[in-house]
Amino acid sequence: MAPRITVYEVGPRDGLQNEARVVPTGEKLRLLRLLADAGLARIEATSFVSPTWIPALADAADVVAQLPARPELAYVVLVPNAKGLDRLLEALARAGDGGPQVDAAVFLSSSETHNKKNINKTIDETFAAFDEVVQPALAKGLRVRGYVSTAWGCPYEGAVAPERVVSIAARLLALGCYQVSLGDTIGVGTPNHTRRLVELLLARARPEQLALHMHDTRGTALANVLVGLEAGLTTFDTSVGGLGGCPYAPGASGNLATEDLVYMLHGMGYETGIDWPLLIAAGELAQKLVGRTLPGKALQAELGARTVLAGKGP
Amino acid sequence: MAPRITVYEVGPRDGLQNEARVVPTGEKLRLLRLLADAGLARIEATSFVSPTWIPALADAADVVAQLPARPELAYVVLVPNAKGLDRLLEALARAGDGGPQVDAAVFLSSSETHNKKNINKTIDETFAAFDEVVQPALAKGLRVRGYVSTAWGCPYEGAVAPERVVSIAARLLALGCYQVSLGDTIGVGTPNHTRRLVELLLARARPEQLALHMHDTRGTALANVLVGLEAGLTTFDTSVGGLGGCPYAPGASGNLATEDLVYMLHGMGYETGIDWPLLIAAGELAQKLVGRTLPGKALQAELGARTVLAGKGP
Repeated sequence: MAPRITVYEVGPRDGLQNEARVVPTGEKLRLLRLLADAGLARIEATSFVSPTWIPALADAADVVAQLPARPELAYVVLVPNAKGLDRLLEALARAGDGGPQVDAAVFLSSSETHNKKNINKTIDETFAAFDEVVQPALAKGLRVRGYVSTAWGCPYEGAVAPERVVSIAARLLALGCYQVSLGDTIGVGTPNHTRRLVELLLARARPEQLALHMHDTRGTALANVLVGLEAGLTTFDTSVGGLGGCPYAPGASGNLATEDLVYMLHGMGYETGIDWPLLIAAGELAQKLVGRTLPGKALQAELGARTVLAGKGP
Repeated sequence: MAPRITVYEVGPRDGLQNEARVVPTGEKLRLLRLLADAGLARIEATSFVSPTWIPALADAADVVAQLPARPELAYVVLVPNAKGLDRLLEALARAGDGGPQVDAAVFLSSSETHNKKNINKTIDETFAAFDEVVQPALAKGLRVRGYVSTAWGCPYEGAVAPERVVSIAARLLALGCYQVSLGDTIGVGTPNHTRRLVELLLARARPEQLALHMHDTRGTALANVLVGLEAGLTTFDTSVGGLGGCPYAPGASGNLATEDLVYMLHGMGYETGIDWPLLIAAGELAQKLVGRTLPGKALQAELGARTVLAGKGP
């Protein structure tokens, strides 16, 4: 029997963070509720980075305090430093007993240049800084996820050796992260590279400790996911409607769209717990919130087909 | 060593046929020359359907008579009936000795309803009508390709059983077609379905007798291609820039983009004989000819990256 697959929705954080238009808190919560209703089991809700860096997520504490709690649902929020962890813990205290389950996430790049430009630290300095976040978070009973960017290629350094990525992933797991997500930040991954990377990772970690976060910048995201599925991975990061552009190529696609992944998984007989019509409704809402057509293909196919059925198409 | 893969370009016919704007003959030939220069080994150039049905291809004879001949390149043109074959043979006579190699192609659907709506015949009637095209074409020394639409699903009948598709493909091969291309016309294919279909086909035909023509309507095209590659198939149909929309869903994507396939193949170490910068130039020209942004993702990533390098991006 096919294993259950965890679709890890990153749109409300990774997607909205990159939008020019700042979405009001109430609208973000509307999208988060709809994604929760659609049956997503993991949702990256926001980030406690400095509001100076990312004004779009300045309302992180208000979002966390109002997240709808669901028995099977864990949210994840990015926590870059001790200050961010304090803000998260305060927000969780505001949410109170019976509030949502919220995991913390830390992040770095697998290439020095990208890490330096993104976090202004070397990779070793970044790991040193994790000491003020990861152990304190675990001590407070939070789970911590690790996120490795540029795990296939770096916009400054080119291809990244799988061995290097494996070593960074292993350090994150050794720190106490329950899962490490490998991100193809610039969408350059192809299947043989992915197979080798996943095989090396599975020599050091269990399948449930790993996730793939593919970008669809060159259309290869689902082919890479297929390689991961065949190797036994069960967690894949995606974004509703493909929300979140690629900052290195205007007009290009970024995150793999949640609907595209779920369409393929359901077609292959995998269970996800996700309700298709509600997921499409979430994609439609996400489009309204950012005021533009999103790149997700299955979403556009569904909305287009609906137009035809309503007699408005050719 | 990885086998050489034949990328079968269908944009000039399948793509331009569906465009609202009729592209002038000279511009079509400019695109065809650029695709030939880029190293495509197979190019579907036009169709000898009645100009009443498809005015965009009324210049089929003029296109064929002026196709640039290349030693390694075979063009393919659609020939729906005896009248179409006569027009093709006349055009080839005009091209004269040393003219291009041109194969004929016949087509039908694997679902009765789609075939009836598209060709106005039952499937058995369609095969009967092939008698006036296939044998006469073979007798004139032409090679004939067969094309099976709705081979994964039909917009009217839903999922199509692989056994049904295999039976139609086998009839085309028995008629004398050198290759049969299976088309996922509405882009519903997912990998397990594709694996089963390809396995059944390979029990009846050699890999080089088969091609996959995937549509990327739901983002699954390259995942399905990967299944085909792993099963040993070596020919895949694509369209420059993803030219050619999906008539059933306005705004939705249709043909898999040539650049997306070639990006994945080169990344996996397959040889295609295709020059990447010239292929991107062809995609850029195709965009200009139809006057809109095409959906091909690798094309947009390349053009977007170029904008960034030129200092015009964010």
